[in-house]
Amino acid sequence: MTDVVETVADTTPEELDLLLGAAVAAAPMLAAERPADRAVRLRAIADALDAAAEELIPLAAEESHLGVPRLTGELKRTTFQLRLFAGVLDEGAYLQVTIDHADPDWGMGPRPDLRRMLRPIGPVAIWAASNFPFAFSVAGGDTASALAAGAPVLLKAHPGHPRLSVATAAIVTRAIADAGAPAGAFALVTGVEIGRTLITDPRIAAGAFTGSLAGGRALFDLASSRPVPIPFFGELGSVNPAVVTPSAAAQRAEEVATGFADSMSLGVGQFCTKPGLLFAPAGSDLPRLVADRLSAVAAAPMLNEHIARGFAGALDELAGHDGVEVLTRGDTSETPTPTLLRTSAATFLADPETLTHEAFGPAALVVEYTDRAELERALAAIDGQLTATVQTVDDDPDAAAVLPILAERAGRVLVNGWPTGVSVTWAMQHGGPYPATTSVQTTSVGTSAIDRFLRPVTYQSTPGSLLPEPLRDENPWHLPRRVDGVLEP
Amino acid sequence: MTDVVETVADTTPEELDLLLGAAVAAAPMLAAERPADRAVRLRAIADALDAAAEELIPLAAEESHLGVPRLTGELKRTTFQLRLFAGVLDEGAYLQVTIDHADPDWGMGPRPDLRRMLRPIGPVAIWAASNFPFAFSVAGGDTASALAAGAPVLLKAHPGHPRLSVATAAIVTRAIADAGAPAGAFALVTGVEIGRTLITDPRIAAGAFTGSLAGGRALFDLASSRPVPIPFFGELGSVNPAVVTPSAAAQRAEEVATGFADSMSLGVGQFCTKPGLLFAPAGSDLPRLVADRLSAVAAAPMLNEHIARGFAGALDELAGHDGVEVLTRGDTSETPTPTLLRTSAATFLADPETLTHEAFGPAALVVEYTDRAELERALAAIDGQLTATVQTVDDDPDAAAVLPILAERAGRVLVNGWPTGVSVTWAMQHGGPYPATTSVQTTSVGTSAIDRFLRPVTYQSTPGSLLPEPLRDENPWHLPRRVDGVLEP
Repeated sequence: MTDVVETVADTTPEELDLLLGAAVAAAPMLAAERPADRAVRLRAIADALDAAAEELIPLAAEESHLGVPRLTGELKRTTFQLRLFAGVLDEGAYLQVTIDHADPDWGMGPRPDLRRMLRPIGPVAIWAASNFPFAFSVAGGDTASALAAGAPVLLKAHPGHPRLSVATAAIVTRAIADAGAPAGAFALVTGVEIGRTLITDPRIAAGAFTGSLAGGRALFDLASSRPVPIPFFGELGSVNPAVVTPSAAAQRAEEVATGFADSMSLGVGQFCTKPGLLFAPAGSDLPRLVADRLSAVAAAPMLNEHIARGFAGALDELAGHDGVEVLTRGDTSETPTPTLLRTSAATFLADPETLTHEAFGPAALVVEYTDRAELERALAAIDGQLTATVQTVDDDPDAAAVLPILAERAGRVLVNGWPTGVSVTWAMQHGGPYPATTSVQTTSVGTSAIDRFLRPVTYQSTPGSLLPEPLRDENPWHLPRRVDGVLEP
Repeated sequence: MTDVVETVADTTPEELDLLLGAAVAAAPMLAAERPADRAVRLRAIADALDAAAEELIPLAAEESHLGVPRLTGELKRTTFQLRLFAGVLDEGAYLQVTIDHADPDWGMGPRPDLRRMLRPIGPVAIWAASNFPFAFSVAGGDTASALAAGAPVLLKAHPGHPRLSVATAAIVTRAIADAGAPAGAFALVTGVEIGRTLITDPRIAAGAFTGSLAGGRALFDLASSRPVPIPFFGELGSVNPAVVTPSAAAQRAEEVATGFADSMSLGVGQFCTKPGLLFAPAGSDLPRLVADRLSAVAAAPMLNEHIARGFAGALDELAGHDGVEVLTRGDTSETPTPTLLRTSAATFLADPETLTHEAFGPAALVVEYTDRAELERALAAIDGQLTATVQTVDDDPDAAAVLPILAERAGRVLVNGWPTGVSVTWAMQHGGPYPATTSVQTTSVGTSAIDRFLRPVTYQSTPGSLLPEPLRDENPWHLPRRVDGVLEP
């Protein structure tokens, strides 16, 4: 792979200082706006990106090596997401408006008039990811949810797609400026060292990140050790275990093997939701069936050399582990083919930490278990995950036993599905206990992602003329709210 | 002050290990319960505490030096709070049930069936505070909200009221056991060094704390630097600035001065919401009027020697600061009288960090400003606060200008009220930007406090028989929910 990357000049410290100053100046202006004004802007970004598809997709294909069909779908997802957040703003439930009128007879003693809502958290720093040059990059989900919340965004470009980043940022900047956004509402920044500067700057109120465990943890540590610590929403990765019950292995082996092989090799295995661990009953046909299916997967280029090197290294470590057998030895060049490994639950239980290391690429490990007790012990040894899957059949007691264990460990549990292909909806949860994320209580995909960039404020005994409009009795924006304890949709 | 504190034996490492093991075992049992079952338990605790008032209140008075009237009110608040959370459980909106049915025509491509709800975060460690021996201690707000969430609680007793802690814990333990709670749902732990052990133990999933900046920050740092970092909800303190506009000073000086003096000296100034800073227009009568009112405040004992020493030290630092004048020099023994200081906004702006240090006790600093621009600069120099107040009159442009600045800095803003006396309601927010708390997005008082002990999980393509009851189509618990994007109350 010989990338010809045009140099995009790094943001200088002086430029960054100006951009941070502009973000700070924009914050109260955005906080004072109507959400509907921001909705208009999100739709303007979406329209502008759609209109620029013919410019952007070839650039993305060239820089990411992801194919045009995938990138076309990803851009569609990206603009869909912006419009979905516009709908969130139009509805306004996200503000969580809660009004308690003064009550002299409140059980613990007279209560004053109290009115609570969420407001933007302030300027946020967002790190783009390499593996979704649209959906988790400059105009991706973090940006959409932060702009929806009313938080100014400083977007750290990913060096894997520098020209696409600049082109996308130009479109975003123009679209929101035309739609009345204050200067400072959005800016792209670039540079290797700038991440550390950003997360430690006192003007930044929160960080959001999708990427590696090492990089994300380093930023989380910086965010937490500041004189004024700030929330850092890092999505760091996962091996996404999938469990096949004995009944499913007996009745649906072919279908399960096909689904697993396709999901783990999709996009050259470069999804944070790639299923990298398959728990199969010992003696089933599954390993062979998966290997057969994988043998038909064509070689395809990885995102970049750095990722290809990382994949080869992680895979060597797994494949070289005592008690791990290589079923299908794929190519681990920069244009790899899938690799399938196998081990026993006993071996897995002896060293779960190593055997749950994420190999970011087309590889997976089949762990064969002898009975449900051993399976449950193995699952209990697994750290936090973005997703966990069970493959089952109707009325399967094994699924009923395993599902609660998976729900303890993952942000999303699936039954007879596969975790790749993360839909953007109201009910999506893309997060999970550490090390899946640094922030187990939030999601980075779906409408609830907006919550990351908001904080509550209560107004006490404040006359209507001084209240933000959402908190006024007459409810001028027709918001869903809770009044004196009662929900009003 | 010569406290005769009976020794309460420290929890041994072996005992703590057993308690943590029991909490881990209880966690999935609590997570599988109906919230209504936990509601019964919260009411049982409240009833048992009310029934034990004649035992508990004298014990609290003896250990805390807070008077019987205050403690009677505080116990009422505590049991009210437990019953309020029972109501939260009965309603069930806190689960945030969100159901998206499968949709082949979803804008970004077919969406699977997705169902999201909140579930308990796991065992939590809670640090009791000294200044509310009921409401922020063993059976206080953190315990109530964690038990409501379904999170097992390990409660670190405050050494300031050891016997009350043991007595309260015995009541809680018996009440929830009688109401069917699994062993491990609640335990009291004691000891100076045990806090560090608790927050670093891998079995603890979150921490909650009310106390000093130094202590809270140390625990936050431990929570954040664990191999698996966990959320730490620390409420660390505040100086709670209050602004008097020129019009209010002209028209309501007497009323404002009386309210301020009473609020800052209430409970011997030992509230985290005590207003410690008063911004008054230069040349007003306010300092004299406040000083007059304070001269009538009787001496009263502080919670304990440690707090009295801390107060005297912090006050010496403020009073000795260049440009700070002592208007009323109170006694700073263990039974103090109020102290009032005065300075100019110019002096304040030269060293806002020192002059916003909290003196936890009956002391306050009046900062005199010359015009609104100077006032706004001074307010902009203030760190995060639990509360911020403006004293104003009708149609006062100064209040309209100042209120948004205060809302940027505080979790609760008040108009013509005083911040002490934190009501427990749906709309209360008790939190704020650091250093008021380590967790700007949450509250430790009010029904939203339950959110701290929950995390989201989404179930994908899961048949009804395997779904938790709240996520089933038939809505067996009649929960408010969002279905296919539409709120259903």
